[in-house]
Amino acid sequence: MTRDEALALDAADPLARFRAAFELPEGLIYLDGNSLGPPPVALHERMTQVTREEWGHGLVRSWNSAHWIEAPARVGGKIAKLIGAKPSEVTVADSTTVSLFKLAAGALSLRPGRKTILSEAGNFPTDLYALQGLAALLGPERARLRAMAPEALIDAIDEDTAAVVLTQVHYKTSRRWDLKALTDAAHAKGALMIWDLCHSAGAIAVDLNGVGADLAVGCGYKYLNGGPGAPAFLFVAERHQAAIASPLTGWMGHAEPFAFEDGYRPARDIRGMITGTPPILGLAALEAGVDLQLQADPAFVEAKGLALCDLFIAEAEARAADPDLKLTGPREGGRRGLHVSLAHPAGYPLVQAMIARGIIGDFRAPDIARFGFSPLFLSYADAWDAAHALADILATREWDQPQFHARSAVT
Amino acid sequence: MTRDEALALDAADPLARFRAAFELPEGLIYLDGNSLGPPPVALHERMTQVTREEWGHGLVRSWNSAHWIEAPARVGGKIAKLIGAKPSEVTVADSTTVSLFKLAAGALSLRPGRKTILSEAGNFPTDLYALQGLAALLGPERARLRAMAPEALIDAIDEDTAAVVLTQVHYKTSRRWDLKALTDAAHAKGALMIWDLCHSAGAIAVDLNGVGADLAVGCGYKYLNGGPGAPAFLFVAERHQAAIASPLTGWMGHAEPFAFEDGYRPARDIRGMITGTPPILGLAALEAGVDLQLQADPAFVEAKGLALCDLFIAEAEARAADPDLKLTGPREGGRRGLHVSLAHPAGYPLVQAMIARGIIGDFRAPDIARFGFSPLFLSYADAWDAAHALADILATREWDQPQFHARSAVT
Repeated sequence: MTRDEALALDAADPLARFRAAFELPEGLIYLDGNSLGPPPVALHERMTQVTREEWGHGLVRSWNSAHWIEAPARVGGKIAKLIGAKPSEVTVADSTTVSLFKLAAGALSLRPGRKTILSEAGNFPTDLYALQGLAALLGPERARLRAMAPEALIDAIDEDTAAVVLTQVHYKTSRRWDLKALTDAAHAKGALMIWDLCHSAGAIAVDLNGVGADLAVGCGYKYLNGGPGAPAFLFVAERHQAAIASPLTGWMGHAEPFAFEDGYRPARDIRGMITGTPPILGLAALEAGVDLQLQADPAFVEAKGLALCDLFIAEAEARAADPDLKLTGPREGGRRGLHVSLAHPAGYPLVQAMIARGIIGDFRAPDIARFGFSPLFLSYADAWDAAHALADILATREWDQPQFHARSAVT
Repeated sequence: MTRDEALALDAADPLARFRAAFELPEGLIYLDGNSLGPPPVALHERMTQVTREEWGHGLVRSWNSAHWIEAPARVGGKIAKLIGAKPSEVTVADSTTVSLFKLAAGALSLRPGRKTILSEAGNFPTDLYALQGLAALLGPERARLRAMAPEALIDAIDEDTAAVVLTQVHYKTSRRWDLKALTDAAHAKGALMIWDLCHSAGAIAVDLNGVGADLAVGCGYKYLNGGPGAPAFLFVAERHQAAIASPLTGWMGHAEPFAFEDGYRPARDIRGMITGTPPILGLAALEAGVDLQLQADPAFVEAKGLALCDLFIAEAEARAADPDLKLTGPREGGRRGLHVSLAHPAGYPLVQAMIARGIIGDFRAPDIARFGFSPLFLSYADAWDAAHALADILATREWDQPQFHARSAVT
């Protein structure tokens, strides 16, 4: 492909108008929206409103007058539209990890007598850690985590499996699980399916109710552009809401939070999954990101993202002609998420050399250079430029300079 | 006291200069900083920095370059100075409720074989709910919550008690527990003491290490002025850090978060209590509040707060001359926190009538009008004016108008 051909794709791109809705430094190609999305331009007005008007002027009255108390349900209800859920099935609170802990313990409460939680070896570590923590807390009589290789996973689901916990799009390889097939496989053995949608929401067209999903969790700060450490969302299918028991019971999950009763009585709807006082500043920033996302058709978003990935892979492989550069995960778009992971022995310095050129990706050990293609703010020309820069850096061994080998606290 | 005498106290007040460091609407007397503190003026510059420069310009690089990754420890280390802890003993993450869950489960891990968690009936409900949730999750063989009347509490501590969980200053009555006496009583039976400092940090001069405290949690959005739903802080005494097991294990508590290992290995310091990705916007706002608080001597803060309360009580009682108006909790300053709770049959409409006059307090069921005296932004004249307004509203029955009886979602 020529660069002019990439520019022609941009000229015909129905999502191109979204670029102007994001604040991104001039000249930067940001291929790390899968780690931390950039701020929407509208964020600043929203933050000024929440800090100056709602907090500064309204003070404590804003719990009512600015509807802070409804923020978890309101933002959750908006995210629901992006993932094929009903507004009443999604709320926003706490981190992804804490939310997953709630759902996994909740799944055990819905499947009494079963004690296995099944997940994938090599899943994003915090998911495994949350499940390990739950199993350690409950002890081997009550819970155990089995982390299986992906190819052995379906066969490992059995009558002791309370829940299967999978991340739809793998953080490292970008491999995508089939939502429907896995949900069906779990249900066939009477198990619940818990989906981690961290690399899906805002990227992949997800239809949770279409596949009969039970429970799900996802990240606010990646493709939803909700800001660093944004609160996570969680989904509980309506049919499970009356019976699921959250282990993290707090006043905001009580049927009547302001009755100030000594005894916990859970709200029998999605509010029952909330724990403490909701993080209003984080929710406001997340809402700005979600509001923007809602203006784009998820099917268009996914299609453009996959096309950007395809372009990048094809150009990088064709121009680099480096036998050490290997695509990890599936080549076929429909089996991948919106990031491209390229293994290379010089993965770490390669990413640093790209960053030095103003093209930001990230590195995942041991050797993966990872590039995310957020469809709302990236162009086909961006993908073309990034691929050609990568090829050039490899051809010239530009990465082999000492400054590109220095490690940071956060990779 | 005359109003001129109150003004004379303000003229001599070494903390008077802090009023200008807060953004508060002109003419408002804000007696609800114990529920939600107001924003510091410096907040806005800090939020602009974090959203425009760090997030918008730095993007994902800011985890390193803007030291986001260190924010929980950095802000925790600052709060440590306000509560008599070492910087290495405090971190900030999650809500108060989630943090208390971690500490209570952690206390059980430190006291194997013991299963009772003891707390106070009528404690702030979310504390009781978190402990009930933990007990329900673990089952009666492993954990039980006993919520005792305060006068029966010390005698109830026994050899089965793993932890005693108390809020130093009661949210409703303002009654203050003796940190040292209760900590000693718990230790005498081999139990751990978990202090909830929600109404203490930024208000009362707390010396956790001076009393040999084990574990503590506290709120960021009350007297620390960290913003609505600000993340909470938690304290683990150094001697417990290597052995305590957090039940909420996540990647940020791992010894090497960016090694992306499948198996959880906890950091053996305060970081081991962190779970998911830290909420950077909430941490930034909280840090602005804490930075301001650090400029004031906690002993001066407490002394002024108690003096404001004393003035308010004395003037309200003297001028109101209403036999139905009753101070709840102790009259003696050293046994109270910085809010004054007045029971009155018309408590709810009384508070609404005060709000209509621009004096914001809040109501706690069944009949308590609650007024908080945050020492950094309130003056002696404010306390005098509030007491006289209260007396006037009672004398004229101004509260008995229909609009003051309408209930809001959040009281």
